[in-house]
Amino acid sequence: MRFVHDTLPQRVSFGSGEAAASLEREVAELGASRVMVIASKREMDTAGTLTGNLRVLLRYNDVVMHVPVEVAARAREAAATHNVDAIVSVGGGSTTGLAKAIARTTGLPVVAVPTTYAGSEATAVWGLTEGNRKTTGTDPRVLPKVIVYDATLTLTLPVPISVASGLNALAHCVDAMWAPKADPINAALAAEGIRALAEGLPKVVTDPSSIDGREHALYAAYLSAVAFASAGSGLHHKICHVLGGAYNLPHAQTHAIVLPYVLAFNGPAAPDAEHRIAAAFGTNRAIDGLEDLRRELGAPHALRDYGFAEDAIPAAAEAILPAVPPGNPRPVTVADLERLLRAAWSGADPRATF
Amino acid sequence: MRFVHDTLPQRVSFGSGEAAASLEREVAELGASRVMVIASKREMDTAGTLTGNLRVLLRYNDVVMHVPVEVAARAREAAATHNVDAIVSVGGGSTTGLAKAIARTTGLPVVAVPTTYAGSEATAVWGLTEGNRKTTGTDPRVLPKVIVYDATLTLTLPVPISVASGLNALAHCVDAMWAPKADPINAALAAEGIRALAEGLPKVVTDPSSIDGREHALYAAYLSAVAFASAGSGLHHKICHVLGGAYNLPHAQTHAIVLPYVLAFNGPAAPDAEHRIAAAFGTNRAIDGLEDLRRELGAPHALRDYGFAEDAIPAAAEAILPAVPPGNPRPVTVADLERLLRAAWSGADPRATF
Repeated sequence: MRFVHDTLPQRVSFGSGEAAASLEREVAELGASRVMVIASKREMDTAGTLTGNLRVLLRYNDVVMHVPVEVAARAREAAATHNVDAIVSVGGGSTTGLAKAIARTTGLPVVAVPTTYAGSEATAVWGLTEGNRKTTGTDPRVLPKVIVYDATLTLTLPVPISVASGLNALAHCVDAMWAPKADPINAALAAEGIRALAEGLPKVVTDPSSIDGREHALYAAYLSAVAFASAGSGLHHKICHVLGGAYNLPHAQTHAIVLPYVLAFNGPAAPDAEHRIAAAFGTNRAIDGLEDLRRELGAPHALRDYGFAEDAIPAAAEAILPAVPPGNPRPVTVADLERLLRAAWSGADPRATF
Repeated sequence: MRFVHDTLPQRVSFGSGEAAASLEREVAELGASRVMVIASKREMDTAGTLTGNLRVLLRYNDVVMHVPVEVAARAREAAATHNVDAIVSVGGGSTTGLAKAIARTTGLPVVAVPTTYAGSEATAVWGLTEGNRKTTGTDPRVLPKVIVYDATLTLTLPVPISVASGLNALAHCVDAMWAPKADPINAALAAEGIRALAEGLPKVVTDPSSIDGREHALYAAYLSAVAFASAGSGLHHKICHVLGGAYNLPHAQTHAIVLPYVLAFNGPAAPDAEHRIAAAFGTNRAIDGLEDLRRELGAPHALRDYGFAEDAIPAAAEAILPAVPPGNPRPVTVADLERLLRAAWSGADPRATF
């Protein structure tokens, strides 16, 4: 047992239907009284309802995906002009991202109210884009001081997006088990995330208006972000990053398809991770739990269905090889990667692959 | 799912045999160069070895149990006189406690190197005594910035003390499941603590010089402190607090004896806790896991062996009743408490008690 783990300071206020009341309490506790509310145009009405009890000096909806630098600059200027003393962001990753961009240069406290399972609210990672170039970094100043989770806000998230986003969170949890900065604390949080996703996602599918399933998924999204931000990218994320970048494959589907093959490959060489994941699923083998869940959710299962060509496999394997984390529990050869990609391409049973 | 959870900022550096190197790195990272080292007389040699690479302006060994106010005042004065910019504490609860007392008024950063399973290093709780009166409070300033865990420092902790201290940590974990501020995050950390204790403590007993068992126990002590400080005192700690105060029963033994009866009482009414504890032990029922572990460790099992008189039971039950947390998963009557205490007094099978 050898690790360095940084626990980041943050308050989580979790309660369905309580976002407005929680916001009032938390903003007051921050001693703030000049609030900037950020939400996309689509979510401005929701944000308006939630922030009715706050003294809001500025409602801001100039939210753009991937936070272009000029969008960040405008938002910072607006915050300065109105001399706000706190930011309340209501929305998904892009909205939280804009709030973080302001916090990074101003130090203003952020209270994040997530409406998706993106998880950005639980990390100190910021991202900005300039043209086509994305820059990311880590800064304690961008970590929201408070997260207000209210699962009723996620009820309008369509089921397919909920499932894809939930499986993305699941991939964070599984990969955190053997990522470069994996440690038992991250593993415990990730295992709790897996448990909550396995409990919640099937309910989201069978009864999309059930708050119980949504609560579990939202709670798990938080845990997955905390664990993943701390542990870093493992083999799974390295593979998906190359596939997404070089072959323009859809993010969520790629993660959902590739994960079981990485688990089948790494699991036998990572007994602690294997045991934790299996226990979280409540199955004897980790891969059985994952496959049962994927089947229950009707998850995508073959890369060929998403435009990945069979003859791209050898080059993709070569491209992934240098990105493999040195500490991966099992050595990875280019032949292993070809085998993995071929199985993921066709949707073969991962249990028969390795 | 409804909770507010505060995650406190702290770095944990865990590595057996690495304390000296970790201290050098962490103190440098704090930007500190005028260090005060606190250790009891008994541990001054150990502390000297560990801090050889630091610029130490003051080595301080005036450590007294429960941190009397005059001891705290002298230590603060010494810190001011030498104009130190960081405190390194090496020791158990009393040593960490003194470092916290200085941090509380000076804001000096503390790097704690625990040599027991007390867990104080992982909480923002401080305590001071004036005569016979103990005052405690919570202050983010007293939370050590960094904990350096090195299990080799616990090898000299005698086995009976290790077991008692380990069972005390176990009681923190179990009680955190249904304490007033219980939440799923605390529960996940507490479950991880139970898992690590169940794995580590038997190894400490069978092979006291094994570093593996010690590492698990130390790691679990950390988790138990984090979970318990966040969740607060549940039924178990309220019972033990009254018994310890009014009947002068030994702390660790009282906790070790009472815990299974509280678990047998609360478990059936707290299915989530029951499930988590059982899963952490790897048994079907939580109480089976606890009883197996207690038997393996040769834990004490009857309050009558420690000076608790049978005829004190009715009055003790009456004294405990008003302290029962309102949110306990199962309503508690004075008859329940009498039954629980009678069983704990005689050492009856907890499974046959409720």
